[in-house]
Amino acid sequence: MEIGELKKLFDDMTIEEKAGQLFQTVGAMYDDEAVISGPMQEMGITEKDIQLAGTVLGTMGAEKIKRIQKKYMEAHPHHIPLVFMLDIINGYKTVYPIPLAQGATFQPDLVKECAAMAAKEGAADGLHITFSPMVDLVRDARWGRVMESTGEDVYLNGLYARAMVEGYQGADISGGEKLGACVKHFAGYGGAEAGRDYNTVEVSERTFRDFYLPAYKEAVEAGSALVMTSFNTINGIPASVNKWLMRDILREEMGFDGVLISDFGAIGECVNHGAAEDRADATKKALEAGVDIDMMSGTYPENIPALLKDKSISVELIEECAWRIMKLKNDLGLFENPYKGADEIKAKACILSEAHRELAQKTAENSFVLLKNKDNILPLDKKKKIAMIGPYIDRRYMLGGWSFTGNPEDVITIKNAAEEKLADYEIVYAQGCPILSEDVKLEGFANYTEEKFSQEDCEKMKEEALRAAKEADVVVLAIGEHFLQSGEATSKGIIEIPKIQQELFEALSEVNSEIAVVLFNGRPLDIRILEERAKAILEVWMPGTMGGAAIVEVLRGAVSPAGKLPMSFPYCVSQVPVHYDEFPTGRRHHPGKDKDRYVSKYLDMPNKPLYSFGYGLTYTQFEISDLELSKTVMKPGESVTVSVKVKNTGDREGTETLQLYIHDIAGSVVRPVKQLKGFERVILNAGEEKEVCFTVDEKMLRFLRADNTFGSEPGKFEVFIGNSSEVEECKVFELLKG
Amino acid sequence: MEIGELKKLFDDMTIEEKAGQLFQTVGAMYDDEAVISGPMQEMGITEKDIQLAGTVLGTMGAEKIKRIQKKYMEAHPHHIPLVFMLDIINGYKTVYPIPLAQGATFQPDLVKECAAMAAKEGAADGLHITFSPMVDLVRDARWGRVMESTGEDVYLNGLYARAMVEGYQGADISGGEKLGACVKHFAGYGGAEAGRDYNTVEVSERTFRDFYLPAYKEAVEAGSALVMTSFNTINGIPASVNKWLMRDILREEMGFDGVLISDFGAIGECVNHGAAEDRADATKKALEAGVDIDMMSGTYPENIPALLKDKSISVELIEECAWRIMKLKNDLGLFENPYKGADEIKAKACILSEAHRELAQKTAENSFVLLKNKDNILPLDKKKKIAMIGPYIDRRYMLGGWSFTGNPEDVITIKNAAEEKLADYEIVYAQGCPILSEDVKLEGFANYTEEKFSQEDCEKMKEEALRAAKEADVVVLAIGEHFLQSGEATSKGIIEIPKIQQELFEALSEVNSEIAVVLFNGRPLDIRILEERAKAILEVWMPGTMGGAAIVEVLRGAVSPAGKLPMSFPYCVSQVPVHYDEFPTGRRHHPGKDKDRYVSKYLDMPNKPLYSFGYGLTYTQFEISDLELSKTVMKPGESVTVSVKVKNTGDREGTETLQLYIHDIAGSVVRPVKQLKGFERVILNAGEEKEVCFTVDEKMLRFLRADNTFGSEPGKFEVFIGNSSEVEECKVFELLKG
Repeated sequence: MEIGELKKLFDDMTIEEKAGQLFQTVGAMYDDEAVISGPMQEMGITEKDIQLAGTVLGTMGAEKIKRIQKKYMEAHPHHIPLVFMLDIINGYKTVYPIPLAQGATFQPDLVKECAAMAAKEGAADGLHITFSPMVDLVRDARWGRVMESTGEDVYLNGLYARAMVEGYQGADISGGEKLGACVKHFAGYGGAEAGRDYNTVEVSERTFRDFYLPAYKEAVEAGSALVMTSFNTINGIPASVNKWLMRDILREEMGFDGVLISDFGAIGECVNHGAAEDRADATKKALEAGVDIDMMSGTYPENIPALLKDKSISVELIEECAWRIMKLKNDLGLFENPYKGADEIKAKACILSEAHRELAQKTAENSFVLLKNKDNILPLDKKKKIAMIGPYIDRRYMLGGWSFTGNPEDVITIKNAAEEKLADYEIVYAQGCPILSEDVKLEGFANYTEEKFSQEDCEKMKEEALRAAKEADVVVLAIGEHFLQSGEATSKGIIEIPKIQQELFEALSEVNSEIAVVLFNGRPLDIRILEERAKAILEVWMPGTMGGAAIVEVLRGAVSPAGKLPMSFPYCVSQVPVHYDEFPTGRRHHPGKDKDRYVSKYLDMPNKPLYSFGYGLTYTQFEISDLELSKTVMKPGESVTVSVKVKNTGDREGTETLQLYIHDIAGSVVRPVKQLKGFERVILNAGEEKEVCFTVDEKMLRFLRADNTFGSEPGKFEVFIGNSSEVEECKVFELLKG
Repeated sequence: MEIGELKKLFDDMTIEEKAGQLFQTVGAMYDDEAVISGPMQEMGITEKDIQLAGTVLGTMGAEKIKRIQKKYMEAHPHHIPLVFMLDIINGYKTVYPIPLAQGATFQPDLVKECAAMAAKEGAADGLHITFSPMVDLVRDARWGRVMESTGEDVYLNGLYARAMVEGYQGADISGGEKLGACVKHFAGYGGAEAGRDYNTVEVSERTFRDFYLPAYKEAVEAGSALVMTSFNTINGIPASVNKWLMRDILREEMGFDGVLISDFGAIGECVNHGAAEDRADATKKALEAGVDIDMMSGTYPENIPALLKDKSISVELIEECAWRIMKLKNDLGLFENPYKGADEIKAKACILSEAHRELAQKTAENSFVLLKNKDNILPLDKKKKIAMIGPYIDRRYMLGGWSFTGNPEDVITIKNAAEEKLADYEIVYAQGCPILSEDVKLEGFANYTEEKFSQEDCEKMKEEALRAAKEADVVVLAIGEHFLQSGEATSKGIIEIPKIQQELFEALSEVNSEIAVVLFNGRPLDIRILEERAKAILEVWMPGTMGGAAIVEVLRGAVSPAGKLPMSFPYCVSQVPVHYDEFPTGRRHHPGKDKDRYVSKYLDMPNKPLYSFGYGLTYTQFEISDLELSKTVMKPGESVTVSVKVKNTGDREGTETLQLYIHDIAGSVVRPVKQLKGFERVILNAGEEKEVCFTVDEKMLRFLRADNTFGSEPGKFEVFIGNSSEVEECKVFELLKG
């Protein structure tokens, strides 16, 4: 629709209709037998509110959505279509690895393809918007929702933010195979104090702006249709009613003019925060902050009429929000085609198609991180007898905590894939133990029950596993967190492998020292025991529909692991928050070199994570050498080329991801000891050597200076190129004054 | 000296002499055989610099200080006296409990007496300034320096800050029995990320101002002669070169016009931080921030001459600092009497005098916190056979990590006191185990070696202890951290009782369930195992010279424990940072009551500490009832009286500390779930009941509002009176608009 026409339509709407656009409801409200439920009635939500609501949460299925849309539009005075929104986080029906795993690919293009695939499936099934990407910076593995982030690095998160938005949206969100993106959670949600979900975020404005905000900004600049508010407070005010955050930063500084939606119930919850007197006050404050859509707290329809009546809020405020929502509907092309991509036949054809399954598998393969591989125990040697043990060997629940759209029945387990691809290997299988012991409650998780085992079953299982391990040359042990132990509202104090599995590992390691662990998890874990006693550790996260197939390809060496950690694995939980891009202190600790007791360290554990950001091995080895700068002085406008030689010194082809880090030695404010500024994946044959170059320019040196402007400062910079953030060798160049 | 006269003297000084005042040196430099040491020479420190230095760190002894002063003044062109400074943290020679223990007294007056005692001993021994109080807010038990803080509460810390300053300084710091105070560490040092000492502090400006700054402000308003900078950065800039912090906040907002001194080496360390190009740049920035004295980084004398020469800094900047130091010397009365209180005879008379030892003992007794006392196992029953076991039963090292002035030889151990005071009890003694196992290294601690025991000794010790426990009716087990495991640079990941002692406890608890633990430590520990299996836990911190005597008085019931925790004991280390005055989230967790999974909690541990701030039992029980408000509406200028009845329902006299907490239900920014606003110690006989009243006025309701002004806001407030921060019952009043 031409914008003038839209404006005419808008002008013709009553204020009641306009206010209705701000209300989000659920599809069930439009079922034939729909009745207003008790809580809705209590909130004062009426049939009329439902009839005038602007958007719908959580409904799926092309046929169903078309039916609801049709019925709704017929009843609406101006026949305005609804927008259908859903959380499609890591795939719709074809589920690819969780976002943290995607982070490990160091391949934004691949992640973009995945997002495009999810959009294709979701759009065909009738959806318009997904609540993704989540680009919250994370530094605390206690926070369960780290699984939905791409990790701890501001630069990498920004690349993925852009990739996902572009993948979902394509060139134009009106496209039949596209979804509108909704970047979340604005802002700082990942900084929850003590890693407790929804908790207060304590962070300096400088760190907030320089580390937390940039990834959201990337998503906004990539054109994300929506932004979602976060649950937390920023500087004492919940995001959903934080005018400074939403008006000054999001709208003005970042220039976002799309739709701002609250997180689930977040506006109403501002009363619990003590940031609003009551729900009416919360409504007023959220509107003043420019939050267009009230997701599921019901407080907008409940309170807007009275607020308008007593002039607590202006008609213009409502119109401003409603107009943005109408523009979104127009951008989605819903006025031309209210059913958009909804197409049962197309859905059937693309969902879980061969191409989609291949992409999901490829992404999983690329997301695995080989943390350890002593004596090259991996890939598996065909000549050896293998015992495949553990609760994850034949388990379908590896889609991650968000994938309620995905069906575990579609999942390829390790055993499924091994039976096909390792048919000529000698393998025995044993579960070993349940994934969790009886005493671990997954309280309150709906629609999911874990299989129960008697004490006797458990003992039998373990005996069988021990027997298998004893008789095998190599044990592949697939263990890890339950998929519901990470995700929203799954903060944990103990970030280890579930106890019953740890006990299985210990028992197995007594009878067979040749153990390769395949590790499933949604967060970095304390895996010191594996580092100490396993021969190999292959981190596979929650790998999705094709998880088992991808794992077997890597185990047998058809594919070499090439992932790099997007988030540090702490030495233990006592170390969090821990991240590679920390600020130097005045008393830096140099392990083994300090003469002085009075340095910044712990008495009983290292400062460094067990595995740091950017770390990851593969089946061959690489030597990095000859770090060179094209010049040591950079004049304004110039750039410096940094090069290294990288050589595959092993006996098979392999991929290495070279990482460029920069350290601004001295600034008007302190700068991180190291910051990722670029990376390049290099594939080399055995013995092959290559020179890899990065161009360092002044833009890479910018940060939030002491005077609160973004820019670089003249001075000296250390440049590192390595295969993890632990790289120590560097060269120095000087940026001259502009 | 009249100020005019001082001004005249000042005007007569050369710029070189003035700059000299900014340099702090050590007493050894003035020994007859003093030679400039290598590092000093490297820094370019000359004989002349030493001759013109303004202050001295770390020398003690009346005779020695007088000698140095005399020699120095004779050589100084204007015969200006030196100021002698030392860390006197919890007592000089008569050592009283560590500051965290002092916090547990909830008796600022008692703490003030202690500070006065320390000043008296220190001043008689020739000192002028002590680097105390440390008023850094602490929320993370990993940080070893929590032992030097009075805890997690902004209000309580403020009271102690004032009490200590008043205690050291009295009405006038020129007094012969007084020391000038130096409040530290300005600012926010206690917020070190991940509890790692010297680490970056991440905190919002709002929390910084509303929670961290107030205690420093109390000390400044109480007249603290000096302020010390902190090691950490605030908003990206190290405190020692942070102009905003020092000029805008400390000098302008707080009105501090005394001497600002850097922490040890902190100015030079700004180069390590990357906040200065080099030491000259650090010097310039520190001077611009108005840091008057460079403590031990030597960068002032090294760089000031050249900076002056090339006009990088102005003469006025040096004069400004020098003038403040000269004023301090004048305030100390040094121009009249350069030896001030130094008096060998007086020192001998007051140091470790009966009165001082009594005060130290009383303070220790009042600092103990009874965390558990099942079946009233304490006080000890004379009819029962007692086994006193544990490495702390006859140990003198209980002065805390800061008390290098105190002599362990002067300490009364538990055994010493028990032999005297429990002579008519049937007691056997056994060490049980060393304080630390061989594998725990106290690396880098000078002048201290722990006694070593062979494996055989250890086994014998343990057997003996088990035998004693088996034959006893009650076991008193004295265990805890080594005194060097808390304090500066002692951050720890494992905050438990040392393993070897934990094993002793477990073994003992197998043979005797009647164990009363006497717990020594400098930080809150994870003591779930004691909570589970000990009958009683008496927290005694690091109790000082009279520790053993105080403990025995409490064990035998001559004194009832009455302390309250000034810092929460976390459930486990995974929970930190944890503090009672947290902000409500939008999704508050109500244990046992939540219907929803999506609340702010952990899957595997509680949100609440094991023992919360304000908690502490005694030998009798109290019932608190009838919480009443004098009115439920407070008009501007009015106050509300809150009252409760408190009854001693036990069978012996006892002390309860009633605590007033207020919760501002809704504000322009979120307010803590509860904040301490007053307390009162009540001593009641068995069966006695009393009404206790608090007056709540508008001043108590003030905070840093959204518009960054301090003030109250009309609205509703919850008022609680209880015996810990866990109190749940409250009444509500409304503050009307002014």
